[in-house]
Amino acid sequence: MDPRRTVVLAAAASVLLSTHALAQTDSLPSWNDGAAKQAIVEFVRATTTQGSPQFVPPEERIATFDQDGTLWVEHPIYTQVTYCLERVPAVVKAKPELAKIEPFKTVLSGDREAIAKLPMQDLVKILAATLTGMSVDEFRAEAKKWLDSARDARWKRPYTELTYLPMLELLQYLRANGYKTYIVTGGGQDFVRMYSNDVYGIPPEQVVGTAGGTKYGYDKSGKPFLTKEPKLLLNDNEAGKPEGIHLMIGRRPHAAFGNSTGDRQMLEYTKAGDGARLAMLVLHDDAQREYAYGPAQGLPNTRVGTFTPALYDEAKKQGWLVISMKGDWKRIFAFEP
Amino acid sequence: MDPRRTVVLAAAASVLLSTHALAQTDSLPSWNDGAAKQAIVEFVRATTTQGSPQFVPPEERIATFDQDGTLWVEHPIYTQVTYCLERVPAVVKAKPELAKIEPFKTVLSGDREAIAKLPMQDLVKILAATLTGMSVDEFRAEAKKWLDSARDARWKRPYTELTYLPMLELLQYLRANGYKTYIVTGGGQDFVRMYSNDVYGIPPEQVVGTAGGTKYGYDKSGKPFLTKEPKLLLNDNEAGKPEGIHLMIGRRPHAAFGNSTGDRQMLEYTKAGDGARLAMLVLHDDAQREYAYGPAQGLPNTRVGTFTPALYDEAKKQGWLVISMKGDWKRIFAFEP
Repeated sequence: MDPRRTVVLAAAASVLLSTHALAQTDSLPSWNDGAAKQAIVEFVRATTTQGSPQFVPPEERIATFDQDGTLWVEHPIYTQVTYCLERVPAVVKAKPELAKIEPFKTVLSGDREAIAKLPMQDLVKILAATLTGMSVDEFRAEAKKWLDSARDARWKRPYTELTYLPMLELLQYLRANGYKTYIVTGGGQDFVRMYSNDVYGIPPEQVVGTAGGTKYGYDKSGKPFLTKEPKLLLNDNEAGKPEGIHLMIGRRPHAAFGNSTGDRQMLEYTKAGDGARLAMLVLHDDAQREYAYGPAQGLPNTRVGTFTPALYDEAKKQGWLVISMKGDWKRIFAFEP
Repeated sequence: MDPRRTVVLAAAASVLLSTHALAQTDSLPSWNDGAAKQAIVEFVRATTTQGSPQFVPPEERIATFDQDGTLWVEHPIYTQVTYCLERVPAVVKAKPELAKIEPFKTVLSGDREAIAKLPMQDLVKILAATLTGMSVDEFRAEAKKWLDSARDARWKRPYTELTYLPMLELLQYLRANGYKTYIVTGGGQDFVRMYSNDVYGIPPEQVVGTAGGTKYGYDKSGKPFLTKEPKLLLNDNEAGKPEGIHLMIGRRPHAAFGNSTGDRQMLEYTKAGDGARLAMLVLHDDAQREYAYGPAQGLPNTRVGTFTPALYDEAKKQGWLVISMKGDWKRIFAFEP
């Protein structure tokens, strides 16, 4: 071989190798160096290095992520609740008798303050009316239309862009190290599955969420279809998260990420397993770049999951690590520098 | 390079290539050439060849398999029912008051004929008493002990060896072509997950089965655990199969395999999708090597799922293909020549 060519190739190989090395040390570029990033990298090293006493075989590498407030913005209101509220006019159009009945009357009034004060049982009625009673295909068509066109009030962007870049990097980093990543959300399973693959790289079958039953039936031409029923099968919140994980995955996660009291049991269940287990909580303490709510801010309780002082104390006691959005994240959104 | 070495290498490469070609044409060595094998190979070619009008992107390649009678022997009684019946003495030992109550009294009597005649509601009581009321870990320990030691009456082998070799080859062939293989069984999800990975290469998270709820709680030391509850969440039979597929996978399969009326809706739902869809039914028509029951044999109805004449007619009408164990399978079990 031409010696000059050898030199060129060696140089190219060296560039490739150092790019590779850079990629390895820099899988989490939006994370500041600190305890949170260090804990993640150390956990991955311990569980994926052959011969490590904490090595986990690839097929057992399961990591579960809450969605709202952990992977994307949940404040001031869950995105799916916004979807349901915005679906109310169409539902009332199809069933005009609802216009005079609460809570639909209040939602149609557009009175934001009154809507925000609707009690939980009214919210459940709105969710049932807007998420059930149609075929799975109809639901998908409606949800897709909304997801494509709706914009959030603060950033004027599709909701699916309000994902946290450091968490997207973390998902990718775990997958690159053989972890199967799951969403385990109190949100509706069918709703999150609409965009989970595009947005998080998580396929529908790896989304565990609050789920209602479906009913198998036939249309006029004899073609089978599934109707979304108002029957609740799985309330994937609090104790429902480990129960949902058992139902849908059948294995205990080695890593779990959440941000609110709704995630407490999932983290506890994860940490109760043998060997290295990672449990982390995202703390919303960045009022400027996102929102600040939770123990330090003394914000009033909102509809969204809260990181209470009690949860903070429990995190310390149980060895769950707190991720400070302000301190640990160099960038929050991909659309911002 | 030494020219002789080049020749050796070229010969080695040629051997490797032809082994590869052989592997490609011979992924289903236990299948006789015929319509069934041909349909499988053609389906895989059509859905995995880039540029084919019926190409399916890898992430959408889902294949679902019934278990009992499709992947392993179900006759004369489902293996899991045998497990439950054999667990009864231990359950009665822990709760002696059950000894005088039906159906436990009959089961303890050992009168096979009487046991076989127990009505469905009695069988449900036995399943509830033997599969629920304990922690998930206790259940696993008991089931493992049984699976390791129990032997079937005819072949005197562990039940997990009574799997059909041609179906194991089919699972492997589909996976080698990018298909994600699932078990969708009327059997208990937690039971099948005990051995699905070892026996079928299907991880627990890809087992959809009849599932009860679990309840999250704490032991005396404060450690969390899940208790198996008698509450039925998913009856994964008949219409429950497409409902379970929607709940657990969220995608319509491209291929589905069953053997009884309990699989009818799963096959129908699979075939109702766009593009190439494969639906197949295993016909038990080999009295010598396994069993013969179903339309041709006019056998009396048993506890196991049946391939009725009506199902046979529907298969023809709907384009589901029938796999004849006698005609299509060169070998049935790995332990037999």
